[in-house]
Amino acid sequence: MPKISNKGISMPESPIRKLVPYAEAAHKKGKNVYYLNIGQPDIKTPTVALNAIKNTNIDILAYSRSEGSESYRIKIADYYKRNSINITHNDIIVTTGGSEALLFAFGSIMDKDDEIIIPEPFYANYNGFSKSSGVNVVPVISKIEDNFALPAIEAFEKLITPKTKAILICNPGNPTGYLYSKEEIKQLAAMVKKHDLFLIADEVYREFVYDGIEHYSILQEPGLEDHAIVIDSVSKRYSMCGARVGYLVSKNEEFIKTALKFAQARLSPPTLAQIASEAALDTPQSYFDNVKEEYVKRRNILIEELEKIEGVKVAKPNGAFYCIAELPVKNSDDFAKWLLESFEFNNNTVMVAPAAGFYSTPGVGLNQIRIAYVLNEESLKTCVKILKEALKVYKD
Amino acid sequence: MPKISNKGISMPESPIRKLVPYAEAAHKKGKNVYYLNIGQPDIKTPTVALNAIKNTNIDILAYSRSEGSESYRIKIADYYKRNSINITHNDIIVTTGGSEALLFAFGSIMDKDDEIIIPEPFYANYNGFSKSSGVNVVPVISKIEDNFALPAIEAFEKLITPKTKAILICNPGNPTGYLYSKEEIKQLAAMVKKHDLFLIADEVYREFVYDGIEHYSILQEPGLEDHAIVIDSVSKRYSMCGARVGYLVSKNEEFIKTALKFAQARLSPPTLAQIASEAALDTPQSYFDNVKEEYVKRRNILIEELEKIEGVKVAKPNGAFYCIAELPVKNSDDFAKWLLESFEFNNNTVMVAPAAGFYSTPGVGLNQIRIAYVLNEESLKTCVKILKEALKVYKD
Ligand SMILES: Cc1ncc(COP(=O)(O)O)c(C=O)c1O
Ligand SMILES: Cc1ncc(COP(=O)(O)O)c(C=O)c1O
Repeated sequence: MPKISNKGISMPESPIRKLVPYAEAAHKKGKNVYYLNIGQPDIKTPTVALNAIKNTNIDILAYSRSEGSESYRIKIADYYKRNSINITHNDIIVTTGGSEALLFAFGSIMDKDDEIIIPEPFYANYNGFSKSSGVNVVPVISKIEDNFALPAIEAFEKLITPKTKAILICNPGNPTGYLYSKEEIKQLAAMVKKHDLFLIADEVYREFVYDGIEHYSILQEPGLEDHAIVIDSVSKRYSMCGARVGYLVSKNEEFIKTALKFAQARLSPPTLAQIASEAALDTPQSYFDNVKEEYVKRRNILIEELEKIEGVKVAKPNGAFYCIAELPVKNSDDFAKWLLESFEFNNNTVMVAPAAGFYSTPGVGLNQIRIAYVLNEESLKTCVKILKEALKVYKD
Repeated sequence: MPKISNKGISMPESPIRKLVPYAEAAHKKGKNVYYLNIGQPDIKTPTVALNAIKNTNIDILAYSRSEGSESYRIKIADYYKRNSINITHNDIIVTTGGSEALLFAFGSIMDKDDEIIIPEPFYANYNGFSKSSGVNVVPVISKIEDNFALPAIEAFEKLITPKTKAILICNPGNPTGYLYSKEEIKQLAAMVKKHDLFLIADEVYREFVYDGIEHYSILQEPGLEDHAIVIDSVSKRYSMCGARVGYLVSKNEEFIKTALKFAQARLSPPTLAQIASEAALDTPQSYFDNVKEEYVKRRNILIEELEKIEGVKVAKPNGAFYCIAELPVKNSDDFAKWLLESFEFNNNTVMVAPAAGFYSTPGVGLNQIRIAYVLNEESLKTCVKILKEALKVYKD
């Protein structure tokens, strides 16, 4: 029997999907499972986007340009301009989700065994893209006590080696919900300029910022043009996760030219989804206002209720729709399984994401979980109630 | 300025798109350009597929499962069963085009510097996927004199080293149009079993076979279950290139399990396109009969007319919709540029793909071009006429 690659063997399983069989078994037993584990919002897709698909009159579903359709890229550039980011459509490559944008970015700037420094906890699939690109993630710990703020620049600098090619941040963060301040971005900018590194910012949650704070993009930072690479996506912004449309944005021409070669090899991003995504840019502001209001309400309820449970510590998120909670348990992986396998409250249980999978350093975050507040207020309240009851009876 | 990766630098530019700026310039000068360079068919997408999209009543465009929606995979398995291939939906992972299927296959079975043997000329983007996976293509030459039939097994065996992990064939072939016989597949099967290699067959053109010959899939070959990996795609089959839906098919569970980890990292294949692709499986047989009849007519006209030109040699294709022609020129790259820049016949010119880009061995195929017969008979006749007139006046 021919052998699987070492790369394939070492590819991590998704920490979010690992528990799916347990959830399916719970379902089969007739339990109702609330899913707090994945970032699939329950928010409706803007009708303007869905209608564009329904009304399309194409008769040949053809490849688009490898870099994405020109009309779409021009409209994306307009979107950024409205958000105080001065770029043109030539600085954009449309990708198959933010996922592919990450893959192209990694491939364009790193060779095998190169290193990328990422504050942890981080979006778990950064591990998968690193493995498949043959590069190494070097984590720098951020702490729940600090709400997961940017670690000290010295902590980054201690980790920089000749193999370091980039710093990657997620802003606002999945799984932390932390929104980096302008000051923190400026510190990162100074560091990457000093050490001649790329700064990749995953800004797929850029619109999900609360409490009147403004998002400061690395693309707004003067003098960072050659270093800044932004990962963006329509997945969460318009609740269009299934579209599979994202983009790479950079003023570094050499980088864009290189990423385009990766894009050409795979021919084209999805054509139908680009039509929907282009239309989505006409979504009225009221849609976003409502969505934001909804998420703020959910966050407030969730945090408030979680904080009432004895022994639970929560980082207060200013963005995205995730939060990390520390539980009075030894191992949240066991706890999450137990919730699905052995616990119920009025025939209900919850599925959470054990946070260890979001850390790269072994043994860190073992008592933490990530909660995605992608359910309505009522459901969230029920979920916290379930967690509370569960913690009362759970034995490590 | 931070540096691009060596991988990025060595990523090949698409040989098909290289000439695009020349074509655009020709356009600007008011010339009419016939595009014979890319495999974007002019055939209409089945209405059943387009209607499925128009009639969809989803209100949240959500992620699908990473391996593709279950209902779609079940229908794909039925398709294969109708085609004498006995697989289940568990043997299938839906990917973002055949392109992503190739990338996942390469990542799952090869590590950096591993080798994959491919008969050349081959689909040029195999180079790109190899580069981005850090693996090396080892070409084995097939010849225009033999219609690009399978090279002798000894020619393959001479190239096998401890680093060889797989043989990749394209059947029927792009750019050759060659359809491997059952006997040839059996020879390959014996070889990969003997040397414990994977056999990847890119069968994206499996339905495009002419002259009453039947396609013999590596999935039909008994005893090859652990070795066989098929790359498939809806792109050409239903003229749905822009859907970006393809699949990996294998009975090797270890392989499927590994490829699934790559699939999970990128979350999901496109959801809308899966809806269209699932519906496309209900396309009536008459659609395919018409398409096939159309391609056979085109091929016959094209080959017949090309053979009338002095000094032109053509391989007669039994499948796909490409053919390789040898021209009485030294360098078809220069000739193709000249066609766009300096030639016109009644204000028309043609864009062809220089074939050197489909060879991995330097200096081979320099006087060959690839023609995609994706235009109607009338246009093809005009194109050959243009080529004929051009060759009369062209000076190397
Ligand atoms: C931080 C972050 N980046 C990137 C992605 C990838 O999303 P997509 O490929 O759907 O754009 C996600 C999805 O959850 C995410 O949370
Ligand atoms: C031989 C071959 N394989 C794979 C592909 C990739 O096609 P897609 O990603 O559109 O399925 C193509 C496209 O032209 C091809 O010709």
